[in-house]
Amino acid sequence: MNHRMIRYIVLWILKIEGLFMLLPALTGFIYAEYREALIYLLIAAICIAFGFIGTRKRPENTGIYKKEGFAAVALCWIVLSMFGALPFVVTGEIPFYIDALFEIVSGFTTTGSSILTDVEALSHTSLLWRSFSIWMGGMGVLVFALIFMPVKDGSRMNLMLAESPGPDVSKLVPRVKDTAVMLYKIYIVLTLAQIAALMLAGMQAFDSFCITFATAGTGGFSVLASSCAAYTALQQWIITIFMALFGVNFTFYFFIICKKAGIALRMEEVRGYVIIILASVAAITINIMHMYEAIGDAIRDAAFQVSSIITTTGLTTTNYDLWPTFSKTILVMLMFCGACAGSTGGGLKVSRVIILFRSVKKELYETLFQRRIKQIRFDGKVVSDKRLHTVNVYLAAFLMIFVISLIIVSIDGYSFESNFTAVATTINNVGPGLDMVGPVGSFAAYSPLSKIVLTFDMLAGRLEIFPMLILFSPVLWRERS
Amino acid sequence: MNHRMIRYIVLWILKIEGLFMLLPALTGFIYAEYREALIYLLIAAICIAFGFIGTRKRPENTGIYKKEGFAAVALCWIVLSMFGALPFVVTGEIPFYIDALFEIVSGFTTTGSSILTDVEALSHTSLLWRSFSIWMGGMGVLVFALIFMPVKDGSRMNLMLAESPGPDVSKLVPRVKDTAVMLYKIYIVLTLAQIAALMLAGMQAFDSFCITFATAGTGGFSVLASSCAAYTALQQWIITIFMALFGVNFTFYFFIICKKAGIALRMEEVRGYVIIILASVAAITINIMHMYEAIGDAIRDAAFQVSSIITTTGLTTTNYDLWPTFSKTILVMLMFCGACAGSTGGGLKVSRVIILFRSVKKELYETLFQRRIKQIRFDGKVVSDKRLHTVNVYLAAFLMIFVISLIIVSIDGYSFESNFTAVATTINNVGPGLDMVGPVGSFAAYSPLSKIVLTFDMLAGRLEIFPMLILFSPVLWRERS
Repeated sequence: MNHRMIRYIVLWILKIEGLFMLLPALTGFIYAEYREALIYLLIAAICIAFGFIGTRKRPENTGIYKKEGFAAVALCWIVLSMFGALPFVVTGEIPFYIDALFEIVSGFTTTGSSILTDVEALSHTSLLWRSFSIWMGGMGVLVFALIFMPVKDGSRMNLMLAESPGPDVSKLVPRVKDTAVMLYKIYIVLTLAQIAALMLAGMQAFDSFCITFATAGTGGFSVLASSCAAYTALQQWIITIFMALFGVNFTFYFFIICKKAGIALRMEEVRGYVIIILASVAAITINIMHMYEAIGDAIRDAAFQVSSIITTTGLTTTNYDLWPTFSKTILVMLMFCGACAGSTGGGLKVSRVIILFRSVKKELYETLFQRRIKQIRFDGKVVSDKRLHTVNVYLAAFLMIFVISLIIVSIDGYSFESNFTAVATTINNVGPGLDMVGPVGSFAAYSPLSKIVLTFDMLAGRLEIFPMLILFSPVLWRERS
Repeated sequence: MNHRMIRYIVLWILKIEGLFMLLPALTGFIYAEYREALIYLLIAAICIAFGFIGTRKRPENTGIYKKEGFAAVALCWIVLSMFGALPFVVTGEIPFYIDALFEIVSGFTTTGSSILTDVEALSHTSLLWRSFSIWMGGMGVLVFALIFMPVKDGSRMNLMLAESPGPDVSKLVPRVKDTAVMLYKIYIVLTLAQIAALMLAGMQAFDSFCITFATAGTGGFSVLASSCAAYTALQQWIITIFMALFGVNFTFYFFIICKKAGIALRMEEVRGYVIIILASVAAITINIMHMYEAIGDAIRDAAFQVSSIITTTGLTTTNYDLWPTFSKTILVMLMFCGACAGSTGGGLKVSRVIILFRSVKKELYETLFQRRIKQIRFDGKVVSDKRLHTVNVYLAAFLMIFVISLIIVSIDGYSFESNFTAVATTINNVGPGLDMVGPVGSFAAYSPLSKIVLTFDMLAGRLEIFPMLILFSPVLWRERS
């Protein structure tokens, strides 16, 4: 293990976090919340100081192997969260540290589950930090850091591999650094486009920024207790469309930029994603139509909720917990499905679901016609047995964590529906669940133990499980590479 | 496709079903239920007549390939169920055919879910047929038929492979026919032992037979509305122990018979199974203790329910739907775990769960230390990558069916908890679920569509999914082998 290099990376991230924390501090000064602004400024200064001192001298050996990449990424996220939770506690807005940790992890992992019972009581400063944490976590703070961090390209790849969502990272361009730049360019352009669109549609600047950060990172923090219900129909439609756009594999946009629209439109994952969205909206609209006077309202609510849940954003415009079971069940299944790989969304990812479907079909064929082994193709390319196997094992690991979490959380004694969807919504980084943790509920009532388990689930979900499991593997710490 | 041979096998099974149906007819005469007895006798005669005429001449080519074995087994079970449901309809005790089909499939697949709201209104004749169907389905009617059916040993293997529960069939003895005989010997000895034990403990003969059939086949049909709550503590303990015994891999008993107790006791699956049972009983006892005056009662109820659910039997002594969520969650997870492979129980099976755990661990190691590929061992033997992969794909197929079923069933609009556990309990062949389909509830309220879906799930669960999926594969019917 290259301990020195791991420490170097973690401190680099801390430095970046400090710099990012200047944004809420600035917001505090704008809204004349001087006390909060100074607290954020102070903590930012501490992070930056720590970071600068620790990264003054680069280790001689900057090589990072895969396992070190996994460990470094997991540690980065933990340190990031531990410091990110501090301002909430120091300002006294979330006095209990485990609650503050839950809240900031929920942000960084783009989950959007909240322990707050009254979000409107928060200062503008903290509201912005909370929403901005989603934006930071969406594309990955580390991916951002990789643009500036002076390490080898191979090491960059191993770090990026561990942090990016989806079954595999496609390097858009030969150099990893350029890929990171490209991803952030797309991310920033889409973000600015949404802020502009919302402001043109008459939304206040503060709301526009916060809601856009939440949409871009696909996390569900809102600035109003009613989430997005109070916004106009046009504003809701804008959010719906941008949520769906941020759930698309970013490779799609890359192809569009490179004027390869033909390849982009043939991407199987994007096609599957669009089909699932349209089918779900149609099914839910039919199911909830009788609850609305105008069909347009039913479609808008269905589209918003579907777009929000499949991208694992978690913003809401209605209390869908009151919908018929059929619609609720579809939403719960969409939580597990998730958005495209290579987007900011969580869940299993559409490409994994497609590959799983095909692996079942392949198995069926092999059982029947022993010699005739069919290759599984995805986007025209053959999926190697190794990758196929990895996807299957990922599913197994996912379920293992799911079951263990569900059992621990159920000790608190809340309803099966609450517990099941609480675990589902955190491990898939969605946000709200059903019943007690539904759109109008919160996670406040769970015990500290349950909150820690759910916090772990959020991190495991965002980092795609293996980096988090590796931290618990004694072999990692024993081995010399 | 050897259509002629498939027809031959299906008709052979029909003949056996007719012969087995003579038992309820006999019961009818004993209890002076002449009308019912005559109806069963008539339907039995029809089955036997069809069967004898159809199997008079054996096809020249008795070869059965794997895919034909799968198709034949799936068809056998469907025909078996279609004829088995007839007496219920003709006697008028379950007038609606889809309900009758649900009930008999629930028996043959050893599920034990019921659409009856008043089980005590049934005649002794039908009660016995209902319970006996579990015993028939437990070890597999086809395995029974294989003892007498004049086919090649290789074909026998392909049929047995498709019908036996668990990730793989171990031939206990070189010849498949002898394996089938051996399995049925163990099955019958254990069955007689339980009947004797229950009668010695003071249970009525009729109840002893019916409860034993249910226990042996691990299906949950009882003859009383209160399931097993009315029996004495001693009788309940006897049932608890025999349920656990029938959930053990039958290879274990084979080793015991062969005086290889050492090998038997080292079987990893049996060890895991015992550990899971003991841990679950302990956890639930602690959780429910405050609801009981005497700790002995808490332990007895916990042990009975755990033994019943993990073996997917589904008999109950208490309404566990009233237990705290923690205990209920453990029970729901046990439904998915299931008993040992090579037993009469359903679920994923303990060995699959162990292999899945190990495959996750292996993946973790391979990701970290690329070259060092660890072999997964089970019972000291290396698990081939192929088999590992099959187990993983099985899980994926299982979840696919689960999700689709859940969505369809939820159209009826009952609670998420009811629907989730209804699908879980049928696909795992357990019996009761929670809420509406809990120990004191029934499946009566579901729509015909939902009942058909759940009936399919029971068959898919019992036949381990692939045979049922294959029936829907157009390639099967198009291909010439």
